[in-house]
Amino acid sequence: MSPDDLKTLIRSVPDFPAPGVLFRDITTLIAHGEGLRAAVHHLAARAEGAQAIAGMEARGFIFGAAVAIELGVGFVPVRKPGKLPVPTIGVDYDLEYGTDRLEIDPGAISPGLKVAIVDDLIATGGTALAAAELLRTAGAAVTEALFVIDLPDLGGADRLRASGLSVEALMAFPGH
Amino acid sequence: MSPDDLKTLIRSVPDFPAPGVLFRDITTLIAHGEGLRAAVHHLAARAEGAQAIAGMEARGFIFGAAVAIELGVGFVPVRKPGKLPVPTIGVDYDLEYGTDRLEIDPGAISPGLKVAIVDDLIATGGTALAAAELLRTAGAAVTEALFVIDLPDLGGADRLRASGLSVEALMAFPGH
Repeated sequence: MSPDDLKTLIRSVPDFPAPGVLFRDITTLIAHGEGLRAAVHHLAARAEGAQAIAGMEARGFIFGAAVAIELGVGFVPVRKPGKLPVPTIGVDYDLEYGTDRLEIDPGAISPGLKVAIVDDLIATGGTALAAAELLRTAGAAVTEALFVIDLPDLGGADRLRASGLSVEALMAFPGH
Repeated sequence: MSPDDLKTLIRSVPDFPAPGVLFRDITTLIAHGEGLRAAVHHLAARAEGAQAIAGMEARGFIFGAAVAIELGVGFVPVRKPGKLPVPTIGVDYDLEYGTDRLEIDPGAISPGLKVAIVDDLIATGGTALAAAELLRTAGAAVTEALFVIDLPDLGGADRLRASGLSVEALMAFPGH
């Protein structure tokens, strides 16, 4: 299935998680065996050369680990606070209301490891920027960020590019 | 890598998440490219015949989606409350202290769909039992539950078998 075909598998849900937001939902894509496999294959083709894949909890785990397997590399989970059983390094980042925090196990990153970030969707890019900062603090060379869906009007991909990342998405919803 | 080899990639962390608990951690296994791929391959070999894979948020997403891809079937995320953008069905279940809740999108389940549950670890089995109940409520035929790690002394696998599930794990830590 082409990325255009995959786009037809995305469900659009009005007013979630807040009134006026049109939520682009990958649940219907991943329920489709051929669609799930094709999405991961297209992401992996854009991550060639990565020595590890990092994915953000929780939807980033769905695509990230599978991309890592297709490439034959390891997967680094970027987790919510308190989930990892070892001393972590973390980063706080701003949300629309309040802040959130991401944590990783620094032992998963060897110096200079080439890491690609994978997530389902990029909107404002806040989570991906925080993940890239965290992985770089741990010593990784974070060069690319890959997404199933881009909402280009929210500017996240541009923000990531300004931080030195190569950014690709399988599909975009302009005007979101 | 054999399941015995994979067992050497598990990290054991004392006193997490509470004093006296020895936590069996898959972070080190999934950071290992060959180990991650082999674990998923061994799980998929035990799930042949499944028409969909269900995995529990969040670590179940890491293995579950990849097993689905290897089998060429869809993935059904069993989510924490409030994450899915559509009307869900849910189940409350007891934890050691308090209760928790799982939710799925009932639209992901067609009547009689043969679903295998995948998660990283089975301890008392409470989460997996709740997931099986929820998937069955949605109309699925849940026949098997697959885990990377079994802690057999906690009795979860026996509980799942008593509910009519076939249960397999790639490795066990007796005495946990």
